[in-house]
Amino acid sequence: MVEVATSLAERVVAAMLLEDRATTALGMQVESVDEGTAAVTMEVRQDMLNGFATCHGGLLFSLADSAFGFASNSRNQRAVAAGCQIDYLRPAVLGDRLRAVAIERSAGKRLGLYDVTITNQHGQTVAVFRGRSCRIQGTIVE
Amino acid sequence: MVEVATSLAERVVAAMLLEDRATTALGMQVESVDEGTAAVTMEVRQDMLNGFATCHGGLLFSLADSAFGFASNSRNQRAVAAGCQIDYLRPAVLGDRLRAVAIERSAGKRLGLYDVTITNQHGQTVAVFRGRSCRIQGTIVE
Amino acid sequence: MVEVATSLAERVVAAMLLEDRATTALGMQVESVDEGTAAVTMEVRQDMLNGFATCHGGLLFSLADSAFGFASNSRNQRAVAAGCQIDYLRPAVLGDRLRAVAIERSAGKRLGLYDVTITNQHGQTVAVFRGRSCRIQGTIVE
Amino acid sequence: MVEVATSLAERVVAAMLLEDRATTALGMQVESVDEGTAAVTMEVRQDMLNGFATCHGGLLFSLADSAFGFASNSRNQRAVAAGCQIDYLRPAVLGDRLRAVAIERSAGKRLGLYDVTITNQHGQTVAVFRGRSCRIQGTIVE
Repeated sequence: MVEVATSLAERVVAAMLLEDRATTALGMQVESVDEGTAAVTMEVRQDMLNGFATCHGGLLFSLADSAFGFASNSRNQRAVAAGCQIDYLRPAVLGDRLRAVAIERSAGKRLGLYDVTITNQHGQTVAVFRGRSCRIQGTIVE
Repeated sequence: MVEVATSLAERVVAAMLLEDRATTALGMQVESVDEGTAAVTMEVRQDMLNGFATCHGGLLFSLADSAFGFASNSRNQRAVAAGCQIDYLRPAVLGDRLRAVAIERSAGKRLGLYDVTITNQHGQTVAVFRGRSCRIQGTIVE
Repeated sequence: MVEVATSLAERVVAAMLLEDRATTALGMQVESVDEGTAAVTMEVRQDMLNGFATCHGGLLFSLADSAFGFASNSRNQRAVAAGCQIDYLRPAVLGDRLRAVAIERSAGKRLGLYDVTITNQHGQTVAVFRGRSCRIQGTIVE
Repeated sequence: MVEVATSLAERVVAAMLLEDRATTALGMQVESVDEGTAAVTMEVRQDMLNGFATCHGGLLFSLADSAFGFASNSRNQRAVAAGCQIDYLRPAVLGDRLRAVAIERSAGKRLGLYDVTITNQHGQTVAVFRGRSCRIQGTIVE
């Protein structure tokens, strides 16, 4: 069987996912990944709802944060989050199929800046997220 | 048996917790709550780790966000998060017992501002969080 | 002489500018304004430089903040800033001609969210800004 | 005449101020500075007012940003701002004497985090600011 050729970004994210129990436990799927960008999906489950029957802000943030993490490591240079901001535009409810797309706004020697937009299955924007990454030593894959 | 008198803030948070599946599913415990403030604890589990074997940023954020939510609703006036910022100072690892304390910096007619600090069992600061709430109509308990 | 028809957004911003001494003192020019959007320019002057011979971050912020203020009031419903975030991507130096474009990401009954991008005369992004507005009572023009 | 002994932090800030035209042009005074902290004052002038007759948000930000800049360079290791967040709690008006105090929340090898609080002459909090600095090569004084 012929193996499909995979990009460096795809190999990096595959390696990260192997160890990333949190992203897996939340049922996220990596839809696509490329240099400086990633798209991740998540369906809102019962155990993600807060006291107002909408998706807990922390789990919306988790979705955006995973997309940000994959995008900021996609060039195989390890980076960690320094700080992030999220703004909520519209609640998400049980069963919503959410999609977070991270794009790179800047990638310097030390710092990177990424914008993530979370939309629902109707194409409506649920939240916008901005994350700052800091490069650390090392790579993800050889 | 004599029932312990509970404050309004405690009754509000008890009512919120009954419905808050996300906070429960993440194993959080509300340590204390009072007008404009709340302390919530969480232990870092295996399923909270990211690909770097540290607690996923989204789950640190979730802990802070729950403390923020309880503090901002503690006067029995419904409020939702408008936007939040988190800055990571130190990683948390498996088994760390984290504690988030939310305090009110401002509570106006429409908007509130809350600062949350997450510390670990050694008293070290893991992350700082700032949340803006927006009051909506209604109360939590009668 | 025939008077040029002006839009509501243009009349609002003209009225705001009459009183806005800060925006005028910093030499800003409103290039264009429409519902939910505004473009403002500023040239970096000697008295805007910090100790590193680059434009003081507060003055980059001021430019973005003015564009945000015009965009968030452009529908003639008074709004004030609740909180703002700026991320610096590249320094600006003496003589740089900066342009801030504000766009509306969300405009609800109470809160609005605006993204501002500052670029220099070479089209490079100098800073990105995100502002949250809160509507208050009243209008700008009759 | 006996010269007053000055600390390293004081010498660093004196050197920065010599070149910092923006801070000077806005009439700011450095009240005190020490390792990781700085206090800066500014009086709200006519040319700092916006269209609502309150101090332009960008000039409140400038005050906080200068205090942040002095605090983050106070150990004589050059640092620049990566990103900052400001939340406005109360307007400032003509003649208000504002004071910004910056404190260090974290100072790592690459990144630092600083909290700045702006108060007015009545001791009321006008705004809270959080800034992230990134260390670059070089020192301020020899």
